[in-house]
Amino acid sequence: MCANYYCNVLLYTELSLSVSTDAAMSPKITVELLRQLRQAMRNGKYITEPIQAYIVPSGDAHQSEYIAPCDCRREFICGFNGSAGTAIVTEQHAALWTDGRYFLQASQQMDNNWTLMKMGLKETPTQEDWLISVLPENSKVGVDPWIIAADQWKNMAKALSGAGHSLVAVQDNLIDAIWEDRPPRPSTKLIALGLKYTGLSWQDKILSLRGKMAERKISWFVVTALDEIAWLFNLRGSDIEYNPVFFAYAVIGMSSIKLFVDSKRLLEPAVRAHLELDSQSKPELTVQCFPYESVYTELQAVCAALTPKEKIWICDKASCALTQVIPKVHRSAIPYTPFCLAKAVKNPTEIQGMKMAHIKDAVALCELFAWLEEEIPKGTVTEISVADKAEELRSQQKEFVGLSFPTISSVGPNGAIIHYRPLPETNRTLSLNELYLIDSGAQYLDGTTDVTRTVHFGNPSDYEKECFTYVLKGHIAVSAAVFPNGTKGHLLDSFARAALWESGLDYLHGTGHGVGCFLNVHEGPCGISYKTFADEPLEAGMIVSDEPGYYEDGSFGIRLENVVLVIPIKTKYNYRNRGSLTFEPLTLVPIQLKLINTDLLTQKERDWVNDYHRKCRETVGAELQRQGRKEALDWLMRETQPFV
Amino acid sequence: MCANYYCNVLLYTELSLSVSTDAAMSPKITVELLRQLRQAMRNGKYITEPIQAYIVPSGDAHQSEYIAPCDCRREFICGFNGSAGTAIVTEQHAALWTDGRYFLQASQQMDNNWTLMKMGLKETPTQEDWLISVLPENSKVGVDPWIIAADQWKNMAKALSGAGHSLVAVQDNLIDAIWEDRPPRPSTKLIALGLKYTGLSWQDKILSLRGKMAERKISWFVVTALDEIAWLFNLRGSDIEYNPVFFAYAVIGMSSIKLFVDSKRLLEPAVRAHLELDSQSKPELTVQCFPYESVYTELQAVCAALTPKEKIWICDKASCALTQVIPKVHRSAIPYTPFCLAKAVKNPTEIQGMKMAHIKDAVALCELFAWLEEEIPKGTVTEISVADKAEELRSQQKEFVGLSFPTISSVGPNGAIIHYRPLPETNRTLSLNELYLIDSGAQYLDGTTDVTRTVHFGNPSDYEKECFTYVLKGHIAVSAAVFPNGTKGHLLDSFARAALWESGLDYLHGTGHGVGCFLNVHEGPCGISYKTFADEPLEAGMIVSDEPGYYEDGSFGIRLENVVLVIPIKTKYNYRNRGSLTFEPLTLVPIQLKLINTDLLTQKERDWVNDYHRKCRETVGAELQRQGRKEALDWLMRETQPFV
Repeated sequence: MCANYYCNVLLYTELSLSVSTDAAMSPKITVELLRQLRQAMRNGKYITEPIQAYIVPSGDAHQSEYIAPCDCRREFICGFNGSAGTAIVTEQHAALWTDGRYFLQASQQMDNNWTLMKMGLKETPTQEDWLISVLPENSKVGVDPWIIAADQWKNMAKALSGAGHSLVAVQDNLIDAIWEDRPPRPSTKLIALGLKYTGLSWQDKILSLRGKMAERKISWFVVTALDEIAWLFNLRGSDIEYNPVFFAYAVIGMSSIKLFVDSKRLLEPAVRAHLELDSQSKPELTVQCFPYESVYTELQAVCAALTPKEKIWICDKASCALTQVIPKVHRSAIPYTPFCLAKAVKNPTEIQGMKMAHIKDAVALCELFAWLEEEIPKGTVTEISVADKAEELRSQQKEFVGLSFPTISSVGPNGAIIHYRPLPETNRTLSLNELYLIDSGAQYLDGTTDVTRTVHFGNPSDYEKECFTYVLKGHIAVSAAVFPNGTKGHLLDSFARAALWESGLDYLHGTGHGVGCFLNVHEGPCGISYKTFADEPLEAGMIVSDEPGYYEDGSFGIRLENVVLVIPIKTKYNYRNRGSLTFEPLTLVPIQLKLINTDLLTQKERDWVNDYHRKCRETVGAELQRQGRKEALDWLMRETQPFV
Repeated sequence: MCANYYCNVLLYTELSLSVSTDAAMSPKITVELLRQLRQAMRNGKYITEPIQAYIVPSGDAHQSEYIAPCDCRREFICGFNGSAGTAIVTEQHAALWTDGRYFLQASQQMDNNWTLMKMGLKETPTQEDWLISVLPENSKVGVDPWIIAADQWKNMAKALSGAGHSLVAVQDNLIDAIWEDRPPRPSTKLIALGLKYTGLSWQDKILSLRGKMAERKISWFVVTALDEIAWLFNLRGSDIEYNPVFFAYAVIGMSSIKLFVDSKRLLEPAVRAHLELDSQSKPELTVQCFPYESVYTELQAVCAALTPKEKIWICDKASCALTQVIPKVHRSAIPYTPFCLAKAVKNPTEIQGMKMAHIKDAVALCELFAWLEEEIPKGTVTEISVADKAEELRSQQKEFVGLSFPTISSVGPNGAIIHYRPLPETNRTLSLNELYLIDSGAQYLDGTTDVTRTVHFGNPSDYEKECFTYVLKGHIAVSAAVFPNGTKGHLLDSFARAALWESGLDYLHGTGHGVGCFLNVHEGPCGISYKTFADEPLEAGMIVSDEPGYYEDGSFGIRLENVVLVIPIKTKYNYRNRGSLTFEPLTLVPIQLKLINTDLLTQKERDWVNDYHRKCRETVGAELQRQGRKEALDWLMRETQPFV
């Protein structure tokens, strides 16, 4: 699935022609809620002095891409449930900023108490400018410091203070204060992953971290990203849909480990044993457990005990609340944490697990496509029913845990909506006449998958084949690229586009994102995109997606996505001993030959497709055989005939 | 010529194995100079309170890439004359920071009063850290605010104040104060360029600027870059070698034009007429002339007369002195000025001029190569004599003004030194056994050229041919690339490297830089580089170089450089009506066929070479004919035989 953080606002504006919208699209009535919120903004119970505006950002306290229902505060107050948007309520006004993907949806979900601020349009003011234009002099603007990142706080505070206002941290969240039936914070069962899956014990991860801390003279590291905590402790949860993470913080010192998590979760004997909570470990490898909420006071205590020269690492995307606990002189804000980087480079066990997960995933998809060939002519297969069937088939595979993101299952024109999710009122039937795009993936105990295939069950037009072939050429150009060690992913992005560009075509999203190992399907800090942020150099063991596409609004969408592993490659020469890298596809699902115009391929590209299909046959074929899935095996053999 | 601002310090470190060094390499004796400088640092004549350190940067008051002798203050104080370096003198210490290109040279040119700070090495402190480590508490660090850019000042001031020190602006330059025989600031004759060369009168450029100022509600624009001032007024000078610019400032308002320049230069009747100094122009198009030095006080006067909401544009790379004249509330600092952008997009007259200049330049080079073929077997041709001959042949061409940069003329291993400049003690003789690389260019009244060819006069080895062919493939991949309007140059950089990467090879400089039209051979804001700064989107009319290379230390260097024009191209499709672009080579000098391994070329690449050579024949051949340069014409016809 394309990482939406690689697209910018303007780009979404261009893509906003038609977006999927929710079933019940009548606006939420917010008169009473706004009255209550405004009352809270003056209520001494929450604030010492009344505030004139209150900002409600989208995120949670961990700056997660996906959030839990209890954190959907912006949706609660305004009704708009898209993935991105910020609400601001003043005494007189209520406004919501969102980007082009969501203009229609937001306008349908919000009542007329709300003004929609269309980001990316020239006439739309920024939040700062708007606040300055509507606020009385010397206003106070409140925000929950837990759900605003430190860098965002800094910018907003600067803009407001420049105009005579001030940004104030309101410790009690005012939405929570008026949200009567707010769901509780999830506290799902934790799964402890053994070395079989992780390859590295959490103790070794701690020791490796401490080595890096010692090198940089760092005393403590505050871990706030949920996937980093899950990765560190080799634990998984299901607090957030699709992301096997759990709500927690960790504060790691040179001789202590503090884990902040709901204590109920630690009653489970397997988890206790995994964390060695009841055994006599070495003191510096003993996990001290604290309630999730006590991270603030514990971090204060840690800071109070620092000697003048000691430093604490914290990511500059961490919450303002936690960042500001650390006095500036002790704070070392970093764009990527050591865990973010370490997690991105998979170890041999994780690589093996990712390979196994992709084979199982391919088995499920081969079955799905074989089934589709049978069923489509009956005219009863819909976008939703394919998505359901795909999930059912995946769930039959060993170590299946759940999906890694909502399945994008799209027929014809729906395929042109890049983040389409089929809903009853948009649901189309698959036919022999239209392209079908399915972008889906799963979480297995041993790995995470994410694969897109575009197929046609009848006779594709020459134009569809031509476009598909350009996308394939781009996919191959990246997948087969050889590049020096240390190359950043953005330098490969144009390889994916060259064939499309040559004919005047393009796609408006990045080419690839990092993929976690039984973790988030989107992870930093590497990727392949024309955008150059969040882009650490590629190194062997990193795993990214390779997913160029082409979209024609109102007609069709094409995307071809494999998850690929960065591997070393021996080249003829070795300039300055730098060594070279290339990619190995982990995804092993046939690419529909019917959609390829072979005249447009070079011999090298034809060889690549044949090699790829040979590997699909060998690896996935053997597993289909083992699982006795005869029809899918027949389908696989038919679909992987080599070109002559 | 490769733009060195596209390379970073680490990169240079890697390239520093062997560098060209100056003839007389005995160190400058600086005991007495340092004594005088330290005296000045305490002298109430220059400063109100003694300063404990004085920073001597490299640049001039206009942040020029090349500087005039009177601005070589850092060289004066420490002896080191490389193009990059900063000297800092405290009461006890004297230290010079420079990068890997210059470690050897600096160590040879400086006496033992100086500590060489090798930038890019881990153990080397930054200037800020070093100052903090050596200064007594509450120190004052002085710098001439005219030769430090506003953004550099900001960073240095912040670091120092964080450690309890302060950065102070010393208005009188302390080096000038002790530099007895300091050369005067050049004030060369100005040349007025008519519409025949410029295509746009300076009045129209002013009106166009005012349109942009009105759009953004800007009242004034302070122009400090010398090439922008030359471009604006359609005037050229020769104050700085190779760069046809002159020392000046301009401050442009919505109804006034203030030019700050040595008044003697305006006595020339042609210049007076050109600027309409003596005629009754409209008041808003009347140029008011002021002495160069009065820009500070005049800008103060402009600022004093501003209404509260008025804003002034100034580039964030302008000098700290001039930037700080503008009160913050009125200052709108911009990364690129409107002139920088406007100048980069050449108008039809400039494009025509650039084409003509490149034809004349090609005539000179064809003659040079024909001459070399004759002369080399005699064993008397050296790197220096070829450079001289090239200049002589260019100077025979109409409208020749001078070289656009020092000729890089390098035989065998010298070719691996990317910015090599032959000196008597490094001068090698051209032979039939080694590769020869010549990177050279000239200023003509109608345009600026910059071309690199690598040739072999005997039998190149298979390996040399292989490497040359990869470089050629990279050159063609960029030159023939088709890409959407609005693409940034850095997205094309990998195209130039793909063939080298495939074999494990690479080169450690950018692929292209912007080129001025009878202006600086390196200009922003576009380019083609793996570095992503200074990189505005490419648009039709921009002119850049395309110069991949391959360098093998101690053996040879290969570079193939054409100057290319960005042009629109009609593609089969036109996604979202964005339109597409490609490049048209302006440089028309044969590429040596002998060095090409045609087996490594695709048919498309072979066609490109044939087409290119056909164009050389037609265009340059006709001019050689017209000029009656028979031998060069014969050489051209021989060297441009099509592949079969």
